[in-house]
Amino acid sequence: MSSVGGAYELLQVMRDGKPRTRSQLADITGMARTTVSLRIDALRELGLVVPVSDATSTGGRPSSQIAFNPGTRVVAAADLGATHARIGICDLSGAVLARVSTPLEITDGPEKVLASVRAQISALLAQIGRPQADLLAIGLGLPGPVQHSSGRPARPPLMPGWDNFDVPGEMRKSFAVPVLVDNDVNIMALGEYRSRQPPTENMIFVKVATGIGSGIISDGRLQRGADGAAGDIGHIPIARGAGVPCRCGKTGCVEAIAGAPAITAALHTARPDIASASDLIDRVRAGDLDAIRAVRQAGRDIGEVLNTCVSIVNPSVIAIGGLMAQAGEHLLAGIREVVYGSSTPLATEHLVIEQSRSGPDVGLIGASILAIEHALAPERLDSKLRNVDAEFASHFHNML
Amino acid sequence: MSSVGGAYELLQVMRDGKPRTRSQLADITGMARTTVSLRIDALRELGLVVPVSDATSTGGRPSSQIAFNPGTRVVAAADLGATHARIGICDLSGAVLARVSTPLEITDGPEKVLASVRAQISALLAQIGRPQADLLAIGLGLPGPVQHSSGRPARPPLMPGWDNFDVPGEMRKSFAVPVLVDNDVNIMALGEYRSRQPPTENMIFVKVATGIGSGIISDGRLQRGADGAAGDIGHIPIARGAGVPCRCGKTGCVEAIAGAPAITAALHTARPDIASASDLIDRVRAGDLDAIRAVRQAGRDIGEVLNTCVSIVNPSVIAIGGLMAQAGEHLLAGIREVVYGSSTPLATEHLVIEQSRSGPDVGLIGASILAIEHALAPERLDSKLRNVDAEFASHFHNML
Repeated sequence: MSSVGGAYELLQVMRDGKPRTRSQLADITGMARTTVSLRIDALRELGLVVPVSDATSTGGRPSSQIAFNPGTRVVAAADLGATHARIGICDLSGAVLARVSTPLEITDGPEKVLASVRAQISALLAQIGRPQADLLAIGLGLPGPVQHSSGRPARPPLMPGWDNFDVPGEMRKSFAVPVLVDNDVNIMALGEYRSRQPPTENMIFVKVATGIGSGIISDGRLQRGADGAAGDIGHIPIARGAGVPCRCGKTGCVEAIAGAPAITAALHTARPDIASASDLIDRVRAGDLDAIRAVRQAGRDIGEVLNTCVSIVNPSVIAIGGLMAQAGEHLLAGIREVVYGSSTPLATEHLVIEQSRSGPDVGLIGASILAIEHALAPERLDSKLRNVDAEFASHFHNML
Repeated sequence: MSSVGGAYELLQVMRDGKPRTRSQLADITGMARTTVSLRIDALRELGLVVPVSDATSTGGRPSSQIAFNPGTRVVAAADLGATHARIGICDLSGAVLARVSTPLEITDGPEKVLASVRAQISALLAQIGRPQADLLAIGLGLPGPVQHSSGRPARPPLMPGWDNFDVPGEMRKSFAVPVLVDNDVNIMALGEYRSRQPPTENMIFVKVATGIGSGIISDGRLQRGADGAAGDIGHIPIARGAGVPCRCGKTGCVEAIAGAPAITAALHTARPDIASASDLIDRVRAGDLDAIRAVRQAGRDIGEVLNTCVSIVNPSVIAIGGLMAQAGEHLLAGIREVVYGSSTPLATEHLVIEQSRSGPDVGLIGASILAIEHALAPERLDSKLRNVDAEFASHFHNML
């Protein structure tokens, strides 16, 4: 048993949670029955799979079915926004076991913010009675560009003091586990991707809130680009933006025209009762025509950018999330009007533009996925299994 | 030896052509020395690796170095344009062993065109004295969108009679091997990607000729999108295009303003001596100011689209190829002016915009890569190695 090849593939199959026999697993993976049994034994040693009672069996034979055991270990997930954080503990299937939703000022700087995140993770672990030793990894989303390989923010415009800060190192002051960091919209895209069955292998998740950003899944993989800036669509210029200054220093960016503060500000003179994004959403829901017109126009502006995204990425789904998605069909109608009216037939033939199917935990779930995928990656699984092998070998040697 | 895990990984390491000892391979892959030896023996049986003479060895010991043996089998590659084709035979490292460059009218329809391609492949195989049995796979590029999974063109605008045609099936009338089909710009992007050392994992290859298109490599993988239309940037609208009709039926597309025929047509009234793209390129090279200004403006127009591509894809290299790239630095200067002037600092900090480094074989090389990657993919390698295993096992059994 010098090679542990196949254990990862077996685990991938079993991660859907369905109980299966060794024969079924051999059929699905194309691996030899003996290999499957060896790998399953090793995965059982790690606690990652367990035998399950076979409810359909009527005979007296013991159960031969096994299943993924997602509760054996946990990961921590944190979705940090500019003024708010969601922090949770998830099992290895990404199910949220405990969560806290709390105000947080990202401008307080990384030491203070991350100390608070660490304290919340410890408190949540205690709350569900899991020791720190059960924690396999931490996934963390930040409201700005992040160099994913190092976990360091890269020139984040809204996060003073965070540029190039060693976020994983700071988190490891309390937890000796891998820490995976990514942009908040990227983790939302991962969460949205995971919540869709069957999976949508080519999709764009668009967050429309104070800022506008997107996370791109191509071929089932999150796209980060050379510097972690892929999907950063908020500062693409649009026709109606000519001359409008953006907080980024340029003019004409879609975010400066169609972000929530821009829509609200444009309405505010004529409609002093609309002073905030939540006012705006309330009015849209109440059928207020001014508010509906403004949101639909914002949809057209965003559609102009998404139209280009469609030509470049060719997704089959565009999912709209973020605060403004709560304005419902009016934002979507504006987006659809432009994208279906302008894109090439091939690229839009099968394209669905719809509201995000995920709830407010979408970022939390995405962050947990980052952590779980890292913890169960083939190379880490292999090294754990090699240790199991070594124990087996030594045990076997002692028996001789 | 029920699992052949590791053979693919070993072969991937060796594909750079460098001779290595089994110990070196064990160090590089982290595999056990005994596993490496078993897998190498199996790969030798297939002829994919061979022992090589150890020039640095001064002692009398036999060579222990082994290397990839790319000449053991061949693939065929074809890069079909609207009016021209390059067809070649390549070894398993992608080196072109024989090629032919020939006029071809894609509008003759798939039966006639593909019969000609098959005849050329047979002739080239004969020319280098390789039997058909040596052919492992065929890679083929077409001047339009292709559904890569089925190898069928998807509504190609310039290819009457080709829509949804079973290209692989037609090719297999002569060759019983896998046939991989893709868009011509996608295979050029693959060829450009392969010709860069060290590899550029996030890049966009842009073809500027009669049409304008791009192939996108993200994280080292060619992006195809949901319908094979990813990178289809020619029909993105630009500011200067308002009202200009495009052959696609829409107005304002970048291709209708900055494609070679558009530039030439716009110049032709004032400059009757510039009647074709090659006239235009000649004049630019001769320092003609009208021609230079027109090409630079086309660069700015293309830059407007690429600026958006940079925000969405975040590449570290944009490589400009196709006929118009022969106009040299003037096209690039226009592109750079707009992209560096407008994109966010993070996305352009490390961005290089330059001419394609590949020669006219770039599409041919890309098509050969499609074929080679398919032929040496883990699942096909595994099934071949299982056959070798079975032979070994039966041989071993006979010895007992």
